[in-house]
Formats: sequence, C-alpha cells, structure tokens
Amino acid sequence: MVQPEMSIEPDFSRGTDGLLPAIAQSASTGEVLMLAWMNSEAYAETLQTGYATYYSRSRKRLWRKGEESGHRQAVRDIRIDCDADTILLSVDQQGAACHEGYPTCFFRKRTEEGWQIDQTRLVDPATLYDKPKK
Amino acid sequence: MVQPEMSIEPDFSRGTDGLLPAIAQSASTGEVLMLAWMNSEAYAETLQTGYATYYSRSRKRLWRKGEESGHRQAVRDIRIDCDADTILLSVDQQGAACHEGYPTCFFRKRTEEGWQIDQTRLVDPATLYDKPKK
Repeated sequence: MVQPEMSIEPDFSRGTDGLLPAIAQSASTGEVLMLAWMNSEAYAETLQTGYATYYSRSRKRLWRKGEESGHRQAVRDIRIDCDADTILLSVDQQGAACHEGYPTCFFRKRTEEGWQIDQTRLVDPATLYDKPKK
Repeated sequence: MVQPEMSIEPDFSRGTDGLLPAIAQSASTGEVLMLAWMNSEAYAETLQTGYATYYSRSRKRLWRKGEESGHRQAVRDIRIDCDADTILLSVDQQGAACHEGYPTCFFRKRTEEGWQIDQTRLVDPATLYDKPKK
C-alpha cells in the first residue's frame, strides 16, 4: 500500500532548541547504529548531500558524520514517525559508527551481572580523529 | 567477547528535564518501532516489570506503553550507547507499536514524490483507547 502524503515534514519546532532525535539504522544488518540530533539545517544538508549530517550539541555546530574519521553514512532512505518529531535514517555505514571504534554505539548490553560489551571493535579509537561530539 | 563493565548506568542528568530518548526495536524483525522518552522512574519501572514504561511529555506522567490499548512491549534486552544518554530496547511488541494502528511509528518514507505510507494498519486506531501521548 502506497499512499502519497505530501504535506508532512519533520517538525523541528517540536524539539528542544530546534533539535530532533535522528536514529541511524544499518541498511544491511538492521542494527541500530547510533542516535544523534538534527536541526533543520543538518536535515537539509543530509538531503542535499546524501550523507548523514547531524548537529553536535557539544560542539554547537553541524557535524558531518565521518568528517574526521572517514566513517560516513550514505543515506539509503529516510522515515519520520507519526508525530513528525523523530527521524529514522537507513544508512550504509562506512567503517565504525561509534567513535569508540565499535560497529554501533550500542555495544553495551544489560545483564544480571551488569553491563557487558558484546561487540568487537572494528578500529582502534586512538587511530580516529573523531572525538565524542554528540 | 564479553567484558563486564559494572559501573555504567544511563545518565539521566544528560537529558533535557531528565529525559533520555529510548528506542524500541522489534526483537523478531529488527524494525525500529518507535522512539519515546524515559526518566529514571520510567527506566526503573521497565526494569522491574519487564515491560516498557516511558514518560509522556504531553501528559507529564509515566506512560505504561499499552496501558490503554493493550499493545505492550515485553523487553527482551536493554542497551545503552557509548555516552550513556540513549537507551535501546529490544522488545516483543504486542499488537501495533503506533497509536495510529501501524506496526511501527515510522510508517512514512520519503520519496521523490513526497512522503509515502508503506505500512499497512494492523488495527483501526478508532478502536484503540491509546491517544498520542509522547
């Protein structure tokens, strides 16, 4: 079933400081890679370039994901949720999504014995220029 | 590779009004179902009950997902991200995740012709007591 619904757009006015959460999911594996934030400018640049651009809350500027590490995200498709205040990107992740070198930022899983790391680093984070910048 | 890492916990102080984004992903299909918000109380109740409890920003109270619709989320596992400010739940979704009756809240996909709905409603939203309450 495909229904055109032209009028809806992400509603950045609903986000704190004009920022909406954006989830990046691997197009190939379905893994949730990371969550970052977009303002309207980051979203527009993502559409224009085809690569994920976020807004870094810590650096207070646009963050072209992979601009330092090379670990870019080619955007395959974009979804928004029912109330247009969350963005879901399906991406082809180049390299590691996480600045700590893991394939995803969600490498810690809760167990009865505490949080455990159940992913293996793809790269040594010391070799990445990328620093935490959400 | 499993490494215990006992000390980390979700850092609710990092969220606006003590709220962190929580992503619910289907344990069976890998689909991202929805994004909602948790405060420390919602998180604690989720751990205690094994069912996803969020904090409704519109209703300003805990939201036991499915409390009206019956569409609960049994939590299979919980992950946090690298900087401990996003929660990822793997869940068994009962019924429809979305209050609009779709299997996920991300039923709209961006195309060159505009946003299109590419999921089919599981239930008629008129039959749900659930109202938008994020």
